[in-house]
Amino acid sequence: MFENINIVLVNTSHPGNIGSVARAMGVMGFNKLSLVNPKEFPSSHADALSVGCKNILDHANVYNSLSNALEKNMITVGFSARDRKVPLPSMSLDELATYIKSNNSYTYNIVFGNERTGLTNDDLHQCDYLVNIETHSTTSSLNLSAAVQLFTYQLFLTNNIKKKPNTSVKDLATSKERDYYYSELISILEDTGFVNDKNYKSLLKKIHIIFNKAMLEKDEINILHGMLASIRKKLIVD
Amino acid sequence: MFENINIVLVNTSHPGNIGSVARAMGVMGFNKLSLVNPKEFPSSHADALSVGCKNILDHANVYNSLSNALEKNMITVGFSARDRKVPLPSMSLDELATYIKSNNSYTYNIVFGNERTGLTNDDLHQCDYLVNIETHSTTSSLNLSAAVQLFTYQLFLTNNIKKKPNTSVKDLATSKERDYYYSELISILEDTGFVNDKNYKSLLKKIHIIFNKAMLEKDEINILHGMLASIRKKLIVD
Repeated sequence: MFENINIVLVNTSHPGNIGSVARAMGVMGFNKLSLVNPKEFPSSHADALSVGCKNILDHANVYNSLSNALEKNMITVGFSARDRKVPLPSMSLDELATYIKSNNSYTYNIVFGNERTGLTNDDLHQCDYLVNIETHSTTSSLNLSAAVQLFTYQLFLTNNIKKKPNTSVKDLATSKERDYYYSELISILEDTGFVNDKNYKSLLKKIHIIFNKAMLEKDEINILHGMLASIRKKLIVD
Repeated sequence: MFENINIVLVNTSHPGNIGSVARAMGVMGFNKLSLVNPKEFPSSHADALSVGCKNILDHANVYNSLSNALEKNMITVGFSARDRKVPLPSMSLDELATYIKSNNSYTYNIVFGNERTGLTNDDLHQCDYLVNIETHSTTSSLNLSAAVQLFTYQLFLTNNIKKKPNTSVKDLATSKERDYYYSELISILEDTGFVNDKNYKSLLKKIHIIFNKAMLEKDEINILHGMLASIRKKLIVD
């Protein structure tokens, strides 16, 4: 069901948690699991706790670094306890679910760190967004598979809600229309020299973030296209 | 925090699950746990998995029947997989959380059955309401502590929704910075002929709407400025 979601576990210490995560995924319709340097995998303990979802473990990919595990052109979201100070846009779990639902043509890496230490700063710097799951306690923290379960449930639920007839059914631009605009914009910025091989990826991502936040409607994206077309005509081509 | 919620586990087979339930409770502010005929309790395995919430296990009450565990004058809610056919009013998890929040002077027994077999019909007949947590899979089911985690999180969240002042106090662009960007953009679009006297006002308004929706941060508006500057340099001026 959620083919566009890659759940990534980094430096997991306890193989049982990997099995529990597989179960937390499978029961809500997720099946794509990536493991970065798991302490023990494959593991009979993981298998035992995956109850009915062993196929997810059988198809899990194992990597030796987070950067290798991250699929390209995906939006990467790191989960972290609430006190991390990193210069990343942050979202609540609910906001993330809504975001993914509204941008469903994209693919996503959803990254969870080690049970005790979470994600490192290096890991977080590879993320586009940070999600903190709100909790009451300051002395205890969510179990790894519990965090994954809250994510998979929230996303499942958000996708499963029959269109609330209330929400302003604006004529939102489709992701295809947005992508076409982004590619046009990038193309022009290549011509002006603003985009080059080095910054291409990070800029494309930035553009995605900026304009996706705007929840563009069809008529808005048409206007933006009109702007670009008018610029294109007047551009000096070297 | 949730003193009026008594979480009741019936016939739990694996002591580790009791520990995980304690953690799933504690992290969201719940502390009242009742156990009906646990297979093994107290248990070092339960203690190990309760991470930071062992006090909940220390204060848990153990009973030899569900009826003894149910506190009187409480509303009793049974959790069960979706296919149970019992003549009980049923609620979604979300509805339950809203119900409890709206009727907060009552006290509640929240009852979870055995890992494999769930609640028996006899158990269910002692309940006032039935809750099925929606899932995607028909072949796998929620882990016991995962079900408790979804309940405690949902209730915590429902009670905790204070207007987040858009939490992430991002380094948002000031209105002055935004206005400067808009004027630059308009200026270029005048040069390309896209903006003219007739559409000037409506376009300026559109631009405001689009980019204000994006809640631009400082670094984002800097990038947008960079794009414009690169375009400006390559523009043919009539």
